[in-house]
Amino acid sequence: EQEDPCVNGDGEVLDTLLADLARVNNSRERASKLFQWLIHPIPAKTFFRDTWEKKPILVKRQNPDYYKGLFSTAEFDRILRQDDVQYGVNLDVTSYTNGKRETHNPPGRALPFTVWDFYESGCSLRLLNPQAFSSTVWSVLSILQEQFGSMAGANVYLTPPGTQGFAPHYDDIEAFVVQLEGKKHWRVYNPRTEDEVLPVFSSPNFSEADIGKAILDVVLEAGDLLYFPRGFIHQGDCFPDAHSLHITISSYQKNSWGDLLLKVVPAALEVAMEEDVDYRQGLPLDYLTYMGVQNSDKDDPRRAKFLSRVENLMKKLTSYAPVDAAVDQKARDFLHDCLPPVLTPEELASSVQGAPARWENGEVLNAGARISSQTRVRLLRAGCARLCSDGEMVHLYYTTDNSRVYHKEELKSFEIKTEHTDAIESLIHSYPKFVTVGSLPCDSAEDRIGLAELLFERGIIHTAEPL
Amino acid sequence: EQEDPCVNGDGEVLDTLLADLARVNNSRERASKLFQWLIHPIPAKTFFRDTWEKKPILVKRQNPDYYKGLFSTAEFDRILRQDDVQYGVNLDVTSYTNGKRETHNPPGRALPFTVWDFYESGCSLRLLNPQAFSSTVWSVLSILQEQFGSMAGANVYLTPPGTQGFAPHYDDIEAFVVQLEGKKHWRVYNPRTEDEVLPVFSSPNFSEADIGKAILDVVLEAGDLLYFPRGFIHQGDCFPDAHSLHITISSYQKNSWGDLLLKVVPAALEVAMEEDVDYRQGLPLDYLTYMGVQNSDKDDPRRAKFLSRVENLMKKLTSYAPVDAAVDQKARDFLHDCLPPVLTPEELASSVQGAPARWENGEVLNAGARISSQTRVRLLRAGCARLCSDGEMVHLYYTTDNSRVYHKEELKSFEIKTEHTDAIESLIHSYPKFVTVGSLPCDSAEDRIGLAELLFERGIIHTAEPL
Amino acid sequence: EQEDPCVNGDGEVLDTLLADLARVNNSRERASKLFQWLIHPIPAKTFFRDTWEKKPILVKRQNPDYYKGLFSTAEFDRILRQDDVQYGVNLDVTSYTNGKRETHNPPGRALPFTVWDFYESGCSLRLLNPQAFSSTVWSVLSILQEQFGSMAGANVYLTPPGTQGFAPHYDDIEAFVVQLEGKKHWRVYNPRTEDEVLPVFSSPNFSEADIGKAILDVVLEAGDLLYFPRGFIHQGDCFPDAHSLHITISSYQKNSWGDLLLKVVPAALEVAMEEDVDYRQGLPLDYLTYMGVQNSDKDDPRRAKFLSRVENLMKKLTSYAPVDAAVDQKARDFLHDCLPPVLTPEELASSVQGAPARWENGEVLNAGARISSQTRVRLLRAGCARLCSDGEMVHLYYTTDNSRVYHKEELKSFEIKTEHTDAIESLIHSYPKFVTVGSLPCDSAEDRIGLAELLFERGIIHTAEPL
Amino acid sequence: EQEDPCVNGDGEVLDTLLADLARVNNSRERASKLFQWLIHPIPAKTFFRDTWEKKPILVKRQNPDYYKGLFSTAEFDRILRQDDVQYGVNLDVTSYTNGKRETHNPPGRALPFTVWDFYESGCSLRLLNPQAFSSTVWSVLSILQEQFGSMAGANVYLTPPGTQGFAPHYDDIEAFVVQLEGKKHWRVYNPRTEDEVLPVFSSPNFSEADIGKAILDVVLEAGDLLYFPRGFIHQGDCFPDAHSLHITISSYQKNSWGDLLLKVVPAALEVAMEEDVDYRQGLPLDYLTYMGVQNSDKDDPRRAKFLSRVENLMKKLTSYAPVDAAVDQKARDFLHDCLPPVLTPEELASSVQGAPARWENGEVLNAGARISSQTRVRLLRAGCARLCSDGEMVHLYYTTDNSRVYHKEELKSFEIKTEHTDAIESLIHSYPKFVTVGSLPCDSAEDRIGLAELLFERGIIHTAEPL
Repeated sequence: EQEDPCVNGDGEVLDTLLADLARVNNSRERASKLFQWLIHPIPAKTFFRDTWEKKPILVKRQNPDYYKGLFSTAEFDRILRQDDVQYGVNLDVTSYTNGKRETHNPPGRALPFTVWDFYESGCSLRLLNPQAFSSTVWSVLSILQEQFGSMAGANVYLTPPGTQGFAPHYDDIEAFVVQLEGKKHWRVYNPRTEDEVLPVFSSPNFSEADIGKAILDVVLEAGDLLYFPRGFIHQGDCFPDAHSLHITISSYQKNSWGDLLLKVVPAALEVAMEEDVDYRQGLPLDYLTYMGVQNSDKDDPRRAKFLSRVENLMKKLTSYAPVDAAVDQKARDFLHDCLPPVLTPEELASSVQGAPARWENGEVLNAGARISSQTRVRLLRAGCARLCSDGEMVHLYYTTDNSRVYHKEELKSFEIKTEHTDAIESLIHSYPKFVTVGSLPCDSAEDRIGLAELLFERGIIHTAEPL
Repeated sequence: EQEDPCVNGDGEVLDTLLADLARVNNSRERASKLFQWLIHPIPAKTFFRDTWEKKPILVKRQNPDYYKGLFSTAEFDRILRQDDVQYGVNLDVTSYTNGKRETHNPPGRALPFTVWDFYESGCSLRLLNPQAFSSTVWSVLSILQEQFGSMAGANVYLTPPGTQGFAPHYDDIEAFVVQLEGKKHWRVYNPRTEDEVLPVFSSPNFSEADIGKAILDVVLEAGDLLYFPRGFIHQGDCFPDAHSLHITISSYQKNSWGDLLLKVVPAALEVAMEEDVDYRQGLPLDYLTYMGVQNSDKDDPRRAKFLSRVENLMKKLTSYAPVDAAVDQKARDFLHDCLPPVLTPEELASSVQGAPARWENGEVLNAGARISSQTRVRLLRAGCARLCSDGEMVHLYYTTDNSRVYHKEELKSFEIKTEHTDAIESLIHSYPKFVTVGSLPCDSAEDRIGLAELLFERGIIHTAEPL
Repeated sequence: EQEDPCVNGDGEVLDTLLADLARVNNSRERASKLFQWLIHPIPAKTFFRDTWEKKPILVKRQNPDYYKGLFSTAEFDRILRQDDVQYGVNLDVTSYTNGKRETHNPPGRALPFTVWDFYESGCSLRLLNPQAFSSTVWSVLSILQEQFGSMAGANVYLTPPGTQGFAPHYDDIEAFVVQLEGKKHWRVYNPRTEDEVLPVFSSPNFSEADIGKAILDVVLEAGDLLYFPRGFIHQGDCFPDAHSLHITISSYQKNSWGDLLLKVVPAALEVAMEEDVDYRQGLPLDYLTYMGVQNSDKDDPRRAKFLSRVENLMKKLTSYAPVDAAVDQKARDFLHDCLPPVLTPEELASSVQGAPARWENGEVLNAGARISSQTRVRLLRAGCARLCSDGEMVHLYYTTDNSRVYHKEELKSFEIKTEHTDAIESLIHSYPKFVTVGSLPCDSAEDRIGLAELLFERGIIHTAEPL
Repeated sequence: EQEDPCVNGDGEVLDTLLADLARVNNSRERASKLFQWLIHPIPAKTFFRDTWEKKPILVKRQNPDYYKGLFSTAEFDRILRQDDVQYGVNLDVTSYTNGKRETHNPPGRALPFTVWDFYESGCSLRLLNPQAFSSTVWSVLSILQEQFGSMAGANVYLTPPGTQGFAPHYDDIEAFVVQLEGKKHWRVYNPRTEDEVLPVFSSPNFSEADIGKAILDVVLEAGDLLYFPRGFIHQGDCFPDAHSLHITISSYQKNSWGDLLLKVVPAALEVAMEEDVDYRQGLPLDYLTYMGVQNSDKDDPRRAKFLSRVENLMKKLTSYAPVDAAVDQKARDFLHDCLPPVLTPEELASSVQGAPARWENGEVLNAGARISSQTRVRLLRAGCARLCSDGEMVHLYYTTDNSRVYHKEELKSFEIKTEHTDAIESLIHSYPKFVTVGSLPCDSAEDRIGLAELLFERGIIHTAEPL
């Protein structure tokens, strides 16, 4: 396949890969290629058809360097030294011994002195949201989130030889376990019941008696990948001769059809009550005498009639469902969850973040760079901004001012005046092509340039050439 | 018709009527008779078929005493003198002059000295919730609420000769305007648009230009009745030669099919997500690229497929709708809104409120009265208690400890143990018949008597004979 | 003595006394006479000099009718029947058996059926704030509060024969135990330590081992009085042959010099920091190195100097103390605590509450009554209104819109314009004399009448003759 | 003088100075030396005796490099590029033109592109709390805070040629204006009134008409220093030929004797009410009739007696003042305000932050380093921890886990058991000497080592040699 990005030369594999991906013109295509690399050699199409949300799968590679550069214990050590890692917030110290799961977090900052002491005494370490500390993880997740259309998260797990850090359990996310160092013994079990297939919430810790027989019992070595859907119970433990470091990349938390309906259905009912008098008509005078739990065993013909009326009104709701507006509500949640984009040097040079204005030798240089009608611009990423309407006003929501730290910033947006919505839509839909500012469908050249300046200053668009 | 309760002798008509109604054995039948009296001579059946929620109707009676005893300006004067009526809370002073609607409430207690001064200077007086001050209004509304299965409320309006107190507007309730004294000129107008038929919210004040031509232009005299559904615009003004006193009895606020669906639909979705994996399956990876407002004009075949899936899932919701549980949610709201029952002397003597235990001549008398297996009991009112389940626990909700003042008390309830639900259901369904405590389906005589004592002490049941 | 108000004829003694007191022109004098009756035959002057806040005292009267009419178990029974008495809010059911103190309050309304059952099974009943239910108790307390210049409260205690309802303890108020029916055995004990003399908080329940030997061991019979200051431990129990009913009248909760200083001292410091640069000068650079608990044992000469500077600044605070403003803060708290006045028929007829405006025979009568320059007015009570300044604005605070229920209403006040303060002060200081509205020191006749109307409408002043 | 640290060779002057200071053994001495450098050539002793809190002073140096390395516009540019500087939070864009003061902050992150555009159009830039971005500023302030015993803060001001960014005003802090680049024209004015000498709050913006004649009218050039106390009005503007960059170092906000009294006085009153019955005695029965604002003009002898009693009680308060406990309250506020210490390489190597435990070549190295009885330890800084008592429990409060961002972290502390207070006090008072863990006055060797480990892990102590 021509998508094969697997390069195994010197240096960090992943740096090379990311540099290659930076040359892919369209961020959605880039996401697709990175995902293909993640699950290589399974074709993505096959994966999503046969495996995704259906069953676990193991990829053995015999190539310990396949994921090299994504994360390492050495980088973890560096992070402890340089960054403000807080126990309980960014790092959990855990153990699972003789069927007992414990957390050992002290208060305050996690420094190597105490962390490695815990490790040496047999505790596992879970680094939460490593993307806040590792630029490579940030890069990878910020690309993958465009593949999933749903937040991509991660945790890193370091386990000492001969130990297990967590009890058997299932999660509420699709999990890609990427083995980075050493090896680990994994067992995966089917969901216990129909109700626990693709569950909405994670499980409590299970005992061996709860979980039946493993359907997968494998050893993950560096470079290998294990995927399992939400609801599949799993546990991993280390052999006495090797530690294990893996990163679990996750997505699709609360991203089901039901989660969308949670937005659609109340909105549909609101519309129906406004537009359709059938929903505003009074209930029968006497309905409380034959409906309700205390009357549910009654054999009263009025019950059937009442239930039928409810059913009809519920079915008719579909004709009032503002699906696109509800999708926008979900999209807004996603935009808030998104990691901000990581810029390539070229993107940096052509965006507000790398604009050449600077102080040098006692004076300001290059402060006058200006967008003109000839300037060619496009969105920084396919999905970095989205036009949503709440029925009355239109806002542009965007991810470029998000933080690497989950929800540290409020979701950013600004109102778009009616006369500018066409221009914004045109910009969004023309991606990945650059268009001249002069071609934007606005009323005046002043409008076009003002709008482009605003989008440029918020980091939403960049220019074809540096200003 | 034998239901005609219209008696016109000496004394207060309404006292006689209420005394007669007290002899009706079943509170639902009593409610039905009182409502029939209210709208006499229109048969209730005809009214609910042809008029209710459809159109205004006028009943002219040529009998100024028909509603006598319900309320009077003399009683209003007495209330001002004896009770703590607060401006802005219980009483509004208003005027509508030259198209301008004003409120003139000073702070603090409304005393005759200032109230009558306002009246003499041409202001209208609106007494809110007169049931808190007038026992007769309380009696009437507490009976009618069983007819409506929805809160029955009231306001009293006193208007000086030659004035108007309110601008044209429509309300969000079914209104029965009962003329008590003097006369008033009323104009009623059709809802302005389909969207304002049976509206969910009351309107702002309208100007004459907003409202078109009246469909009803009548004079209400003492003893007359005017009904109009929510959404019908109305205004009333006094002739120079007579003041007007009327009481507006209202019901069916937020009591529509849509209001029930507001309880049913979220519950249905919760059940569906628990029980049906179709709702838990992930959304398509790329749905954000073709759905949402910014894509709503796209001609993409995936849109139709997506919308169809949403429609199917919404339709399938009906099969998961816990309608009886949702009705119980509405029932609980209604029980909280209910006025407590007004007891007849016989009911008083046979209930906890009139139990003969007392202090007399330096000692306690009759404190030993006890319920036994032979004691015959029944609910105090058909609707004074209701058994509801929240899925896990069963509670009995009851109105007998409610206050005359709207929502002054929390909704009262207590948990019913599983082994007692049959006994409670049996008591509820056997109304209006009395049953012996010994016949309640409990495990032991002790249980039967304990349960009966509890219900008796909360005022939910009374005994066939005084204890 | 001519103050002896003790009349023992037919009818209720207290009604006669209150009728006599109503003829006393000055409410402060009336308070003084009522207090003298309470502690008769001890002269008030002697009492306050020798006993008040110093020691317990017993008055035996051999006159069971002395306090007759103040309250009775029969009235308590009537209150249970007619009023909404709530367990835990208005009534406590208690027992003290074998050294164990228990409370037995069920939820909801206290009806005779359950209350007398508790009593018959040996429980004591404490009615909290009987003034909300009994007009006589309201009258008495509303008069006494002017004697104390501090809230006068009350609780009623009904104890079955042969039982005790409460453990030994002390309270944070001056207590006047008025025996109304039956008899009770009381034991009073000295405060246990200097720190518990005139304590700020009530004690927990004590065991016999905690409290030493009683200094008073007496039997209270109807008509007797027992006084003890806050901090004196006490317990009372009934003989097997008689129940006991007493009312405890209390005052002086948080009314000490220290409570005043809590208002004075922060205000003094605020003034000092504004006006005196000595308070704004910086602390020594190094004070943290020799001051503070970790340095308190250091023998450093800088410590003495530092402490001396603090002492001087604290002493100098007295010269900045806004004592009158701080007294006003305390006064406002008291005015909020006050019971509203109980009006005599004459007061009613000459105040806004009894103004003759009324609805009669279909029209308003006497609505035109107007205050004129000749109208003679005075405060309704010496202490029913008070002029206070917060430094910038002047407000008149008043008690006439207070509720019988403690703090049910916010403290009432309105702003007094600078040009009206003299008139208000003149009205306050001329009490109990009536003055003509025309004599008030205002700028214009219109101002005088407007001000008088405002005060009349709020019930603060009444007129010499009915309007 | 031998303290002269003014070195003018190559490289950054300040780096050399800070390296020299790192060799000073005692952090208090180090603070003193750094302050002496700041105000050189004025001797600190002279400065604090004659100038501090009294008058402005100018130091002209003819040495543009004197403060070199503290901060520069180049560093500011780098910060904008690398750090998340937010408009309105970390950076203000201001102008003062034709007597009008304006703020121009847009929302979001401040990037060079927009910031330099503002600058070029004549706006001033104020970087708030540069210590969060500049390590050198953090170092300097963290040292100076030990000199002041009060928070040391800073703002940086960059002003374009020919402009002024702020209106005349005074501040509530002692200000050291350190000119870093270019030059600025400053005018300083006396406090306008006695009440504005050493004020508690900053002033609003003044107009020229408000402020009188300058007492100081000078030009500050790079290397110069201007000091003025709180309350002195000031304004600075740039000449057309040069920009200006200065940093204002500030201290002594809310650090006056009055601020201490705000802690002492309420505590003294609480103690007095507990210990002295004079404060618990009741107020006179009738005090409300002669005290208070409405009685303040009364010539009543009781007033003098009352005021005298208040005065005596206020004066006696001094004997109950828990001054050391109140100082601890202030100390806790200061510890919360403190910057965390900046460690030298030697300190790093001997403290938990630099402990050698690390991941290397696939395994943990040096995790076993352990404190023993022979280990010699001391506090990391004289003032980095403080033992305070709230009367019941003793806590150790410490600054080593504080953030560079003001109050981003809660004040950190842990409880010290009674048997460990002596050991902690001994450690605190032995600073700057190292003591062996074995010499700490604890009950057992285990206790000594456990306590030392705890203090070491929180970064409060370091060891004489690396572990």
